Amino acid sequence: MKMLINVAETVVADALRGMAAAHPELTVDVENRVIVRRDAPVADKVGLVSGGGSGHEPLHGGFVGRGMLSAACPGEVFTSPVPDQMVRAAAAVDSGQGVLFIVKNYTGDVMNFDMAAELAEDEGIQVAKVLVNDDVAVTDSLYTAGRRGTGATLFVEKLAGAAAEEGMPLERVEAIARQVNENSRSFGVALSACSTPAKGSPTFDLPAGQLELGIGIHGEPGRERRAMMTSGEIAEFAVDAILDDMRPNNPVLLLVNGMGATPLLELYGFHAEVTRVLAARDIAVARVLVGNYVTSLDMAGASVTLCQIDEELLRLWDAPVRTPALRWGI
Amino acid sequence: MKMLINVAETVVADALRGMAAAHPELTVDVENRVIVRRDAPVADKVGLVSGGGSGHEPLHGGFVGRGMLSAACPGEVFTSPVPDQMVRAAAAVDSGQGVLFIVKNYTGDVMNFDMAAELAEDEGIQVAKVLVNDDVAVTDSLYTAGRRGTGATLFVEKLAGAAAEEGMPLERVEAIARQVNENSRSFGVALSACSTPAKGSPTFDLPAGQLELGIGIHGEPGRERRAMMTSGEIAEFAVDAILDDMRPNNPVLLLVNGMGATPLLELYGFHAEVTRVLAARDIAVARVLVGNYVTSLDMAGASVTLCQIDEELLRLWDAPVRTPALRWGI
Repeated sequence: MKMLINVAETVVADALRGMAAAHPELTVDVENRVIVRRDAPVADKVGLVSGGGSGHEPLHGGFVGRGMLSAACPGEVFTSPVPDQMVRAAAAVDSGQGVLFIVKNYTGDVMNFDMAAELAEDEGIQVAKVLVNDDVAVTDSLYTAGRRGTGATLFVEKLAGAAAEEGMPLERVEAIARQVNENSRSFGVALSACSTPAKGSPTFDLPAGQLELGIGIHGEPGRERRAMMTSGEIAEFAVDAILDDMRPNNPVLLLVNGMGATPLLELYGFHAEVTRVLAARDIAVARVLVGNYVTSLDMAGASVTLCQIDEELLRLWDAPVRTPALRWGI
Repeated sequence: MKMLINVAETVVADALRGMAAAHPELTVDVENRVIVRRDAPVADKVGLVSGGGSGHEPLHGGFVGRGMLSAACPGEVFTSPVPDQMVRAAAAVDSGQGVLFIVKNYTGDVMNFDMAAELAEDEGIQVAKVLVNDDVAVTDSLYTAGRRGTGATLFVEKLAGAAAEEGMPLERVEAIARQVNENSRSFGVALSACSTPAKGSPTFDLPAGQLELGIGIHGEPGRERRAMMTSGEIAEFAVDAILDDMRPNNPVLLLVNGMGATPLLELYGFHAEVTRVLAARDIAVARVLVGNYVTSLDMAGASVTLCQIDEELLRLWDAPVRTPALRWGI
C-alpha cells in the first residue's frame, strides 16, 4: 500500500506539524502531542478533553475549537494516547471549573484516561469522565469489552462542547454528554480494509465481492460478512440494526459518515437511501451531517449514527461551532 | 472495485437526492441536474454558474451558497454536463445583472458552456465566461487542449463569488475570476488510480511501488511515472514544478488538496512538507486550506495549488462564505 508519508515512525508528528501550519487558531504541541484551542483556558468554562488513536481524522483534533473540544490528545495510529498527554491537556484547559474527559470505549483509552484523571486530580483539577459506546454491531471486540465508541463521539463532543461554551457547570456538561451517548446508536460497514503506516498492508482480508457488516473503526471484525449489497440494502441493514436496539420517539440527529476512502458522490447517494429507510420507519430527522468525520484511514465504507434529541439538545446542536472540521454560526 | 452504490446508471441522481435531503439551503433539481442556492436569484447580484463531470465532489455542488457559486451543473461521472443544464442554471440565478460561467478547461465542458452561453443570450441573459487552466503538469492531455483546470477552480469560485456577493458588476467579477486563474498554478500526484462506477475497475494501471507525477483529476496520464517518493520529496517536486512556471512576488493562497482516498492524517503531514518547501523558497503563505476539495473519486494522492494574491483578493478570500463544503464568517 503506497502512502503519502515520509516514514511510518513520524506520521503522527508530521501530521501535527501540518495542523500547526494550517490552523493558527490552535496551539499544537508537536513534541508532547496535545492540540489546544489557542484561547484556552477560557475563563469560567468547563474544559473538554478527548483523544484516542490517530487514523480517525478529523476526529479528535479537527474538533478542537470554540463550541466543541478544548483539547485533543492524538496517540499513535490506532493506539491510545498516554496519560501524560491527557494531564497536560487538562492542565492547559482548566479554568478552575473542571474538565470533562470524553473517552471512546477501547480498553487502552479507558485505562489511560482513568489514570490521567487520577493524576490530574492530584494536581487539583476536578475531572469527570464520560464513556462513548454507541456501536450496536458487536458486544466485546478485538479492542474492547462492551460496545465500541464510534460516530456518537462527534455528537457528544459537539453537544457537550456547546453546553460548556454556554457556561454550564461540570456536572451538567457531564450529564448532557452521558445523555447524548445513551441516546445514540451507530452501525458501520466496510467495503475494504484499511492499511496502517506501520503495517503497510491491509489490516484484514476482505475478498472481492464481499463486504463486512458491523465493522469498527480499526479494521476489527464486524458482525458478519456477506456478498456485496446495494447502497439501499446496506442502508436498510444499518438502520434496522440500530432500530432493533433503540426506537427513537423523538426526532433524531443523523450522521452519515464516510470511513475515509468512499467518495463523497457515493456517500451522498447512501445518504439518500438512509433518508428513505428512516422515512419508511417513521423516524423524523431534525438535523443531518454527511461527510468524513470519524474515519478509519483509507477504509472504504460508511457508518450511520442516530441520536435521539430533545429541545435542549437541538438548541445545543445549532449553537455556533468553530473548529477545523465542523463550523457554523460564527 | 466495490462501491457504495445501487447501480452505476443512477449514481449521479442518487447523490443529488442525498444532497437535497442533506442541504435544505439548496434547491436541487434532481431530474434536470441543477443545484441552486435557495434564495436565487439574489436581487442586483451577478450570478455564478459552474459545473463539470461528477466525481470531483465537493466541487462544484458543495460550493453553492452565499459568497460562492449561485448554481452548479453536475454531469455524469467525468463527463461534461449538457448545455440545457447550464441554461436552466443561468435562468434560475440571473437577477438581470448577468451570469458568469466558470469553466474548467476540458474539451467537452468548453464546448457545452459555449453553446449554453449562446442559448442563454438568446433568452436575454448576459453571459461572461472564464476558463480555468491552472495545471502546470502537461499542456494538452487526454481530455483537453491546453492546460487542465484543477484546484484553482476553488479559488476562482470563492473569490469571484465574494466579488459578486459584494455587488460588483459582471465585468468586474469576470476580471477578478480571470486574474485569479492567471495567478494560480497547480500540480498533482497520484498514488493510485480511481475507479468509475461505469467501468468498475481502475481507470489506469499504476504498479506497486510507483507513483504518477502531474496527474489530472480524471486518471488521465501525468508528466512521468517514478519509483515511490517520500512526502517531502513529493512536496519539493510539486512546489518546484509550480515555481518553474510562476514565481510569486506576493503572498499566496495555498490549497493542499486530497484526491479522495488519501487519509487526512497523511494530507496534514504532506501539508507540513509543502509548508517547509515554500518557506525554503521564500514564498509567504497568507491563507491555507487543507482537505478534500477537488477530488477524483477514490484516487489516492494530492495536489498543491498556489494563487498569488493582493490586498483585494485577500479581502475577498476572507469574506463570509456559506456552502456545504466551505464555510466561514457566517
